Amino acid sequence: MINIVLFRPEIPQNTGNIGRTCVLTGAKLHLIGPMGFHIDDKTVAKAGLDYWKELDVTLYGSYEELREKYPDATFYFSSTKGKKFHSEVKFQDNDFIVFGRESSGLPEYIMSENQEQLFRIPMIETTTRSLNLSNTVAIVAYEALRQMEYPNMV
Amino acid sequence: MINIVLFRPEIPQNTGNIGRTCVLTGAKLHLIGPMGFHIDDKTVAKAGLDYWKELDVTLYGSYEELREKYPDATFYFSSTKGKKFHSEVKFQDNDFIVFGRESSGLPEYIMSENQEQLFRIPMIETTTRSLNLSNTVAIVAYEALRQMEYPNMV
Repeated sequence: MINIVLFRPEIPQNTGNIGRTCVLTGAKLHLIGPMGFHIDDKTVAKAGLDYWKELDVTLYGSYEELREKYPDATFYFSSTKGKKFHSEVKFQDNDFIVFGRESSGLPEYIMSENQEQLFRIPMIETTTRSLNLSNTVAIVAYEALRQMEYPNMV
Repeated sequence: MINIVLFRPEIPQNTGNIGRTCVLTGAKLHLIGPMGFHIDDKTVAKAGLDYWKELDVTLYGSYEELREKYPDATFYFSSTKGKKFHSEVKFQDNDFIVFGRESSGLPEYIMSENQEQLFRIPMIETTTRSLNLSNTVAIVAYEALRQMEYPNMV
């Protein structure tokens, strides 16, 4: 089982789609607030369809609250500043994978405290842009699950 | 380089997001109509942001038109009826990867003609549902690109 963490997500449709991916992969979703929308927002429900009620989701008031709850867990962080590719990380059962905000990614202090744990998704050389957040989570989640040989999946 | 094919897509936001993924991976996008929206629809432009103009995209009136244009290419098809996982396919440069409609997937005649070329994305055993289309494309595209060692990507 993997843990997906969204740091202060801004766009409810993305969080809805990510919730759907979590349900379909057996992943747990951890949402760090404050967020740009309410978790019971109709738009989330609409984007996540009827999946949301099946989702294992926890809300946190801060990043620190999450880290204190899981002091022994391994955390990885998605960032364009990561030195290795997502597929070079050796993901293991119960790992936490953290994704930043749509507009601004992760804050500097989180990245500097976790430099060895950053990874990036490769893109063509000529771009300075990035993938949609829900696509980013889907790509990384399925790479982690591939490495784990798709536990409880068919 | 990989070729992403959408068979009669219905939801412009999905096609917009898939276009963004294609731009960022150097993939070509092939759209088979008739579609549920116009390609110049404002919603596509909005979902694809300013990426759309950089996209290598071709429109086709039918599936047959695409196949006749590329008689020697290898085609794979995403379907919940596929016997192998997407990560068990050995993707190669210039392959075409076809994705069905959001509501109904691929038509029966395409699946029955291409049974050995179908693949599925693994999901937890208890679900009968499926991933969002743009997430599906992102997962498969990045698995194909991983196998090809991320050509022209950094």
